Amino acid sequence: MELLEALKWRYATKKFSNKKVANEKIHEILEAINLSASSTGMQTYRVFAIENRKLQKELGEGSFNTQIAESSHLLVFAAFETVNKEMIDKYIQFIADERSMPVQNLADFKTALVDGLLNRTDEENFIWSAKQAYIGLGTGLIAAANLQVDACPMEGFNTERFDKLLGLKEKKLKSVVLLALGYRDEENDQFTKLKKVRISMDEFVTSI
Amino acid sequence: MELLEALKWRYATKKFSNKKVANEKIHEILEAINLSASSTGMQTYRVFAIENRKLQKELGEGSFNTQIAESSHLLVFAAFETVNKEMIDKYIQFIADERSMPVQNLADFKTALVDGLLNRTDEENFIWSAKQAYIGLGTGLIAAANLQVDACPMEGFNTERFDKLLGLKEKKLKSVVLLALGYRDEENDQFTKLKKVRISMDEFVTSI
Repeated sequence: MELLEALKWRYATKKFSNKKVANEKIHEILEAINLSASSTGMQTYRVFAIENRKLQKELGEGSFNTQIAESSHLLVFAAFETVNKEMIDKYIQFIADERSMPVQNLADFKTALVDGLLNRTDEENFIWSAKQAYIGLGTGLIAAANLQVDACPMEGFNTERFDKLLGLKEKKLKSVVLLALGYRDEENDQFTKLKKVRISMDEFVTSI
Repeated sequence: MELLEALKWRYATKKFSNKKVANEKIHEILEAINLSASSTGMQTYRVFAIENRKLQKELGEGSFNTQIAESSHLLVFAAFETVNKEMIDKYIQFIADERSMPVQNLADFKTALVDGLLNRTDEENFIWSAKQAYIGLGTGLIAAANLQVDACPMEGFNTERFDKLLGLKEKKLKSVVLLALGYRDEENDQFTKLKKVRISMDEFVTSI
């Protein structure tokens, strides 16, 4: 689908049908997210792709977002609690390997990472990583719409419950945002027919 | 361009040529950003589209990111310092007007916004708005690639200088992230030829 058309077609789906999304489509959405830009390229977040009704029900307990339990697939974006020297070392080595270059060629870049990231608090680095996950979320929303898969991004969930049930603490991750995937239930989702509300381009953009 | 192809084609352009991006393309990128999802739909950020070499030079002074001064167009994403009751009231009225419905129909949604947003600190709301801007950034990156316009997202800039030169404080906004647009300088940007580095899908995604 053409990009602007896809963006107009999509909406935050409140009610999904029982139809499942094919695995190849889920894989394409995840691949698009992995290809997203991230600051310094470090990709300091991970995605959990859940297709397990029982687990989804447990995750969604107490949340007003019924899509957690009722979506075909639930993507959980989780950011690393912090950034440490070990992560930077591993990343620099990985670039050197991927680009077949001596690690010494990346010395300046490494210094910039160390100076920029290790002087921040853990909380600052966690927020930074969470923001990168939101770039991935933006990509995932477009990738889904492009395949005519419906989606709903969600912040309203119990992060502690998610972190516990998914064992994120052991992985030094914390859940930050969700993307439910599936197909809209045309009959029961009143939002399918509502006009998309966006402020005018004049209000949104200032050209200088 | 096909989405995955566009994502593979793009890279964080370090050196732009002098070629300008046509206004229609800039407009399409901005329209895509305006169509991005945002939490609650409130769109609590704005975009400044700068095509002014003198101003770009001033903004980029002292930054290692020469693309601030040298890009064809520079997009500045700026998030609101906080969220207040007036913004919520205005938003609710706007939805009612756009969807031709009585404002009373939105009473529950309004209560959810008030409870959810006004109980947070200004800093929490600012970070929340900044994250929404990153969804827009993700969209902008794809919209640009889709038009074969090169781009570079940037966090490395002097936010105080930007806020001052763009008069953001008066608008209760603070700059959060940049997107430089233009065309790659194939000869002088060594990054055009380097392999894109992304962790494996197995490392990035956990399927459950």
